[in-house]
Amino acid sequence: MARIVMKFGGTSVANLDRIRAVSAFVRREVDAGHAVAVVVSAMAGETNRLVSLCHEVGDPVPALDARDVEYDAVVASGEQVTAGLLALMMQNLGYRARSWHGWQIPLKTDNAHGKARIRDIDGEVIGTAMDNGEIAIVAGFQGVGDDGRISTLGRGGSDTSAVALAAAVGADRCDIYTDVDGVYTTDPRLTKHARRISKISFEEMLEMASLGAKVLQTRSVELAMAFKVPVRVLSSFDPPDAPGPGTLICDEEDIVEQNIVTTVTPDFNEASVTILAVPDEPGRAAAIFNALADGNINIDMIVQSASREAGFANISFTTKEADLEQAVEVLRNEQPKIGFKALQSDRNVAKVSVIGTGMKSHAGVAATMFRTLAEKGINIQNISTSEIKISVLINADAAEYAVRVLHEAYGLDAPKPTAQN
Amino acid sequence: MARIVMKFGGTSVANLDRIRAVSAFVRREVDAGHAVAVVVSAMAGETNRLVSLCHEVGDPVPALDARDVEYDAVVASGEQVTAGLLALMMQNLGYRARSWHGWQIPLKTDNAHGKARIRDIDGEVIGTAMDNGEIAIVAGFQGVGDDGRISTLGRGGSDTSAVALAAAVGADRCDIYTDVDGVYTTDPRLTKHARRISKISFEEMLEMASLGAKVLQTRSVELAMAFKVPVRVLSSFDPPDAPGPGTLICDEEDIVEQNIVTTVTPDFNEASVTILAVPDEPGRAAAIFNALADGNINIDMIVQSASREAGFANISFTTKEADLEQAVEVLRNEQPKIGFKALQSDRNVAKVSVIGTGMKSHAGVAATMFRTLAEKGINIQNISTSEIKISVLINADAAEYAVRVLHEAYGLDAPKPTAQN
Repeated sequence: MARIVMKFGGTSVANLDRIRAVSAFVRREVDAGHAVAVVVSAMAGETNRLVSLCHEVGDPVPALDARDVEYDAVVASGEQVTAGLLALMMQNLGYRARSWHGWQIPLKTDNAHGKARIRDIDGEVIGTAMDNGEIAIVAGFQGVGDDGRISTLGRGGSDTSAVALAAAVGADRCDIYTDVDGVYTTDPRLTKHARRISKISFEEMLEMASLGAKVLQTRSVELAMAFKVPVRVLSSFDPPDAPGPGTLICDEEDIVEQNIVTTVTPDFNEASVTILAVPDEPGRAAAIFNALADGNINIDMIVQSASREAGFANISFTTKEADLEQAVEVLRNEQPKIGFKALQSDRNVAKVSVIGTGMKSHAGVAATMFRTLAEKGINIQNISTSEIKISVLINADAAEYAVRVLHEAYGLDAPKPTAQN
Repeated sequence: MARIVMKFGGTSVANLDRIRAVSAFVRREVDAGHAVAVVVSAMAGETNRLVSLCHEVGDPVPALDARDVEYDAVVASGEQVTAGLLALMMQNLGYRARSWHGWQIPLKTDNAHGKARIRDIDGEVIGTAMDNGEIAIVAGFQGVGDDGRISTLGRGGSDTSAVALAAAVGADRCDIYTDVDGVYTTDPRLTKHARRISKISFEEMLEMASLGAKVLQTRSVELAMAFKVPVRVLSSFDPPDAPGPGTLICDEEDIVEQNIVTTVTPDFNEASVTILAVPDEPGRAAAIFNALADGNINIDMIVQSASREAGFANISFTTKEADLEQAVEVLRNEQPKIGFKALQSDRNVAKVSVIGTGMKSHAGVAATMFRTLAEKGINIQNISTSEIKISVLINADAAEYAVRVLHEAYGLDAPKPTAQN
């Protein structure tokens, strides 16, 4: 008998028919003798409906702003409904089941309403219930703050609920059912050669999540890595009696046959900013990035290069496309203080990254990337690297092509069924 | 400064526009310097939607039936949403406000999920918040059971929440805002002479509620009477800056000028059953009503009369129309044991009641009723009385006419603005 936490997102519980399919997946694990907890999201569209109601109410007087707290109290109701309905459905099938709200477990969070972080989950009560054969159906995305009020974990927070619960009950596995059948070597919409990955390491998945891959929320991967909870991503749209194997996200050590590069991940939501002719003196770069930080703008891929003019440097960086306008405004306001001469911005860029824990022990990964792109005439504007990732900023028009050629260059195209273990 | 509990039902919070009107009523009381708590129902239609979802899931396996518990967890979410939205709206208007769910107060109930009874409300926290100028917005209809699960009080339970909360915080008044502007001497759809009553006693209101008058839930009136909480019924569709006076439900002693009869209340949901030729022996009536009680059928207006045949009696009673079929079935099954000869049932009956605490000290109220109906040629099939009520069962076709003539006979027609104090 294993302890298993299963998680179903909004599209997987969109209506009663979908919840019925979910009940079949749950049934399968229970019938196999496992102790099961299930974390559910709100029915698709329900969270948006509740958020809209809150927004239509209008803006609170700032001094009295407890909007986030009430927002949480309203929005968390969506998951409660799904949890109750699934519990009823499991009872109909003859299984003992009960719904759990965050405050009943309790799943304790901080008081950062709307984007609360989990502090502590009491795994004792849920774990005992599971072991006694009662299916614990947990409303995802929510907990209770120190203030005794309902808190929510932010969008995608049900993944985090599921992984944190899995850690708390010492689950053998956390299965995240979603609308894709696993994690792919790249976005299958970009190349028909994209392949589902059997196993991927926590670190690689974290890089992918950070790059905006929508499969899992970053925080949930961090938690899985911290508590070494194996997470499996699989599709709730597969037949419940024969689900696909999905992708297992696990410790690097548990992956026998490791590719050097596991995924090629594009990110089309980038924009670049170049600040021309900044006086090349200490403190100028700090002034720039302090101003951006004060404006709450996340930046990435910073490059400083010499200017044509002696005594001046050019500084460029990337930011999310959504933040570009504000970044430019912040910099223009600070122009007299920073003393640069001109500012250029470009929305038509994309970041393409190759990710793989294998590159820690293999040289030449970067060289392969640069050579491949050069051979295809794709110009690299910026480069950034981490221990297991190399990212390049290129023209957005070339990004799909770049993904395809890199996917092939790193041997990901070949139909090697055993290559990924 | 008074402590006031205000309650708004489903039609009063049906959409954001209606909730905005509610915020104006609340604002008015707060601006007048009162300490205010507000109890809200789910937005109209929402409870039905949630109940339907539960029902569509299907019937649980009886041995595992925790349907009522999950039903409560699902359905209670409707009130949470309204409470949060109204709190946001009050914050927008510059008022300090927060929502309270049943478990946060806590409002403790027994474990009879779906129809729980309130055991205890901690009035301390809410009362203190109110006195400190924070508007407490309470999700009605719900509490938390001894089992730590969310419980609901059954349909109309928000009235009960409001009155119980008013009792717990020692409120000076509980204002129930609804879609009518008060309690009337009779159903205004039946006669244009129906008049709003300024004050009515708890006892009278309780009789009306028991007869199915929909203004207030019976349990809420019982609580108001037990804790002597003055309850005012008024309309949320009045202009918020000039609401009508409504009807005050209060202690009999606080009503200076007491009519003998306060209301004429029809009930069209009755059906009658007559059991013909029951052997006139001890134990036969007991056998009949035990069987009906075992079938969970509420009965009323029992009359035993001599049969044409010596040694036999006829027994008739009324029941709710919805229970008639089952009542007949129960009796047919018991016919060999009870030994009656025939059974007649009639759906085309109505009960018309006159209610008034004044009749305790005035003779002739019944005589006036019987004489008035006889003069108009209306045949009385059954009679039942309590200390402050006389009910007659008549042909349903005559009921509206009976209401009109009785309303006139007891002096309720005349436009006497001072007659009801």
